Amino acid sequence: MAKKAPRRTAQRILEAALDLFNRFGEPNVSTTLVASELNISPGNLYYHYPAKEELINKLYEAYEAELDELLHASEGVHDVEDAWFFMHSLFELIWRYRFLYRDLNDLLSKNRRLETQFQLVLKNKARAIRQLIAGLSRAGHLEIDVHEVDTLAQSMVVVLTYWLSYEYVRNPREALEPAHAQGALMRGGLHSLHLLAPYLGREQRRHLLALGNAYNGEDPGSSNAGAAASPVDMAV
Amino acid sequence: MAKKAPRRTAQRILEAALDLFNRFGEPNVSTTLVASELNISPGNLYYHYPAKEELINKLYEAYEAELDELLHASEGVHDVEDAWFFMHSLFELIWRYRFLYRDLNDLLSKNRRLETQFQLVLKNKARAIRQLIAGLSRAGHLEIDVHEVDTLAQSMVVVLTYWLSYEYVRNPREALEPAHAQGALMRGGLHSLHLLAPYLGREQRRHLLALGNAYNGEDPGSSNAGAAASPVDMAV
Repeated sequence: MAKKAPRRTAQRILEAALDLFNRFGEPNVSTTLVASELNISPGNLYYHYPAKEELINKLYEAYEAELDELLHASEGVHDVEDAWFFMHSLFELIWRYRFLYRDLNDLLSKNRRLETQFQLVLKNKARAIRQLIAGLSRAGHLEIDVHEVDTLAQSMVVVLTYWLSYEYVRNPREALEPAHAQGALMRGGLHSLHLLAPYLGREQRRHLLALGNAYNGEDPGSSNAGAAASPVDMAV
Repeated sequence: MAKKAPRRTAQRILEAALDLFNRFGEPNVSTTLVASELNISPGNLYYHYPAKEELINKLYEAYEAELDELLHASEGVHDVEDAWFFMHSLFELIWRYRFLYRDLNDLLSKNRRLETQFQLVLKNKARAIRQLIAGLSRAGHLEIDVHEVDTLAQSMVVVLTYWLSYEYVRNPREALEPAHAQGALMRGGLHSLHLLAPYLGREQRRHLLALGNAYNGEDPGSSNAGAAASPVDMAV
C-alpha cells in the first residue's frame, strides 16, 4: 500500500486543483492554496508538480483524452435524439473542465502548450460537428448546401465553446454554481443544436423543438421564456 | 490653453490604457506601464485615476455609450445589405474595445460595475438582433416561427460576442494584430448573419452568401476555405 501513496497524492492534487480552478478561476488559485486545501505542505505538492503550469497541463491532457474519445461518438449520430445526447455529453465534459473555458485567452497567453494545443480542440470539435451533420444528412433527416456546412459547423463550435461564458456574464454570481449547471448545460445544448433546426426535416425539427421545450420550463431566465408572448414585430 | 491640460492628460491616459489593454490584455498591463508609456509619473496618473478599476470603468462607459447608439441602428435594418453594414459596424466597435472581451470573465469577477453592467450589453445586443429580425420580417425578406426568434437571437449574440475570442484561440500569435483585423471582423460578421440564412427569402439569401464569398478569398484560414472540395459525406 505504501508504494502507491505518491501516485495517489499526485491524483488527489489534480482533483483538488481542478475543483478549485473551476470554483474560483485559475488566475485566482495558487498552488499554495491547493496544498492547504489538501492539508499537505507546499513542498509535497512541488515534489509532484514543480510548477502550476504542469498541473494545468496534466489537467488539460486528461480533458483532451476524454474529449477525443467523446468526439468520435459523432460518427454514430443518425437522428436528433442521438445528436441531443451527443451534445449533452459534450457539455457535461466542458462543465467538468470549465476553468479552461473561463479564462481561456489568459491561459493561452501564458502557457505555450495550451497555446498550440487548444486550436486542435476547436478543429476537432468542428470536424465532429461536420460528421454529425453528415450523419443526419445520410439518414435523410437534414438538407444543407455543401458550401454552407463549414460556416454552420464553425458557428456551432463557437456557441458550444462559449456558452458557459455567456451564462456567466448573464449571471456572474450563480451561473457556474453546480445548482445551476443542469439548466445551463441544457440551454447550451439546445442553442447549439437549434442552429440545425431550419435544415432538418419536419419530423426531426419538431422533435428537436420538443426536446428544447421540455427543458425550458425549469428556469425563468432561460432561452425561450416570454417568446410565446412576443410576436416578431414586438420584439423590443 | 494651459487650463485644458488636465483634461487632455486624462484623455491621453485613457487612450494609452485602451491601446495597451488591447495589445497585451488587461491583466498584463499595470497603471505604471501606462504612465511610463506616456512619459508621465505614476503620481500624475493616480491624480486622474486613483485606481486601475476607474480607468477600466471609464473605458467601459465610453464603450457602452457608443454601443447604445449603434444598437439603435438595428431599427433601420430592412434588408441583408443593411444587416451586413450593421453587423460590420458592431464588430468594428467590439474590435476597438477588444480587451473587454479578451478577459471578460476575469474582469467581471474583479469589477463590480462590469459584473452588473455587462449583462445589459448582452441584453441590449439580443434586443437589437430581434429588431433586426423583425425589420427583415416586416420587409418580407425573412420568415421564422415566433417561438424560435429568441433562441436564434441569443445564439447570434454568442457568436458575435465571442467571435474574436474564437479567432484568438485559432491563432493566438496573430489573430488580434491589427493586420488581421479586417479578415477576423468580416468572418465574424458573416458567421453571425449566416445564422439567418435559412430563414431568408431566396434573393436575400443569395445576396448574403455572395457578400460572404466576396470576403472569403482574402484569407486562406477563413471560414469557407476548402468547403467547395468537401462534400458533406466526406466532411471529416
